Amino acid sequence: MIVIGERINGMFKAVKQAIQDRDKAVIQDLAKRQLAEGADKLDINVGTATADPIAGMKWLVETVREVTDAPLSIDNPNLATIKAGLEACTGAKMINSTTGSDEALDTFFPLAKEHNASVIALCIDEKGVPVTVDGRCEIALRIVAKAMEHGIPMDDLYIDPIVLPVKASQTGPGVVLECIKQFSVLSDPPPHIIIGLSNLSQGAADRKLINRTFLAMAIGAGLDAAILDPLDTELMDAMIAAEMLMNRTIYSDSFLKAYRQR
Amino acid sequence: MIVIGERINGMFKAVKQAIQDRDKAVIQDLAKRQLAEGADKLDINVGTATADPIAGMKWLVETVREVTDAPLSIDNPNLATIKAGLEACTGAKMINSTTGSDEALDTFFPLAKEHNASVIALCIDEKGVPVTVDGRCEIALRIVAKAMEHGIPMDDLYIDPIVLPVKASQTGPGVVLECIKQFSVLSDPPPHIIIGLSNLSQGAADRKLINRTFLAMAIGAGLDAAILDPLDTELMDAMIAAEMLMNRTIYSDSFLKAYRQR
Repeated sequence: MIVIGERINGMFKAVKQAIQDRDKAVIQDLAKRQLAEGADKLDINVGTATADPIAGMKWLVETVREVTDAPLSIDNPNLATIKAGLEACTGAKMINSTTGSDEALDTFFPLAKEHNASVIALCIDEKGVPVTVDGRCEIALRIVAKAMEHGIPMDDLYIDPIVLPVKASQTGPGVVLECIKQFSVLSDPPPHIIIGLSNLSQGAADRKLINRTFLAMAIGAGLDAAILDPLDTELMDAMIAAEMLMNRTIYSDSFLKAYRQR
Repeated sequence: MIVIGERINGMFKAVKQAIQDRDKAVIQDLAKRQLAEGADKLDINVGTATADPIAGMKWLVETVREVTDAPLSIDNPNLATIKAGLEACTGAKMINSTTGSDEALDTFFPLAKEHNASVIALCIDEKGVPVTVDGRCEIALRIVAKAMEHGIPMDDLYIDPIVLPVKASQTGPGVVLECIKQFSVLSDPPPHIIIGLSNLSQGAADRKLINRTFLAMAIGAGLDAAILDPLDTELMDAMIAAEMLMNRTIYSDSFLKAYRQR
């Protein structure tokens, strides 16, 4: 699994405060702890912490880069802020995210090439998120075709079938599981398949239970990347166990510890 | 999910002792507690507790039947002991289990008809458990064909792809997940698909984590029945969450409690 740590996000109170105060220690501590718990990349999301998201994104990226060479996922809905994040980011990076509309793909794929960045592409277009598996597969196919057209290697492409809150729609998780199975055979080699996990349990009771149970189900269906909270120990334990059960990491009596120490 | 409680088994020390002492209270308490925690049926396995397994099985069945009308799964490798259990069991019952060899199926399916019992059929034959998905599907197909020949309704047939210890073979769990997906389309309506969960973690570290993680993955693949320990609260929580995520039970903020109180 490719784990993208979600904790450096201006939506969290402590992070918002740290962005406003330009308090590096809080951000760098979050970066280091997420990596120690098994994150492979770190999401960098300035959220609504500041009236100047471009300056905020630059500061976040530079602050995190001082303590790690791990790939950073530049996360913003606004193109100018993403560009600023990519420019500030030395080393490995990722765009989070583009929609699956032709216009967005024709903007973000060239940007990814320019910055040698990987890209998360969402199964949403001008008409919204399709309710059906077929509708999302249609967008995923368009994303793969456009990526090939723009010379984006499949290993740099992360397709997100879009996880919505189960409390809002109980048919959603089943649709996502079926999408994951079908995306795995979209191309050979296939793109990565990624979800933003925490959205699943928005507003729900037993959030952590719901998150870790669905993550195991999704890994069983073929998921190979997720944006999640690596500081949630039980979630990471479930993920590591699922990886071991899929024969992606070797069993030993200390398989949990061994995974984290990779 | 159809949950078959595994705890009344002579392999467990306290149960073995209770069988030897003919101590009804221990057995009846286990029956009631498993049902209270969400078991739909109870497995009855005399194990190696006694030199007279036929008398032991009869006593176990009668003892449990005094406190519940729930279906009982008559679990023994020996035909005579299974017959004794079926005869002693008033009300709903299940045979656990037959292999997938022609000879076994031609013995156990008529026995099931005679006793109006459902049947668990294992994907193993004279040559052992096939290593491949295809090999197990071949046996599963034979089981379905034989069941139709003998007039066993699909709703009374439980096919078990066979879970082996992950510590012994790490490719096993992936094979089982693929079998579950394929068994779901063997016939219309399909048979039930069942696993004996605990065998997965035999000899392994973090047994409960491995069991509950795989159960979630298997439910995501289409599993609809399992023999497991309903007294393992975290296991049941994961199962209930997976059922809810598959839209098989309704979400409410008290979905865990609501499931157990059905």
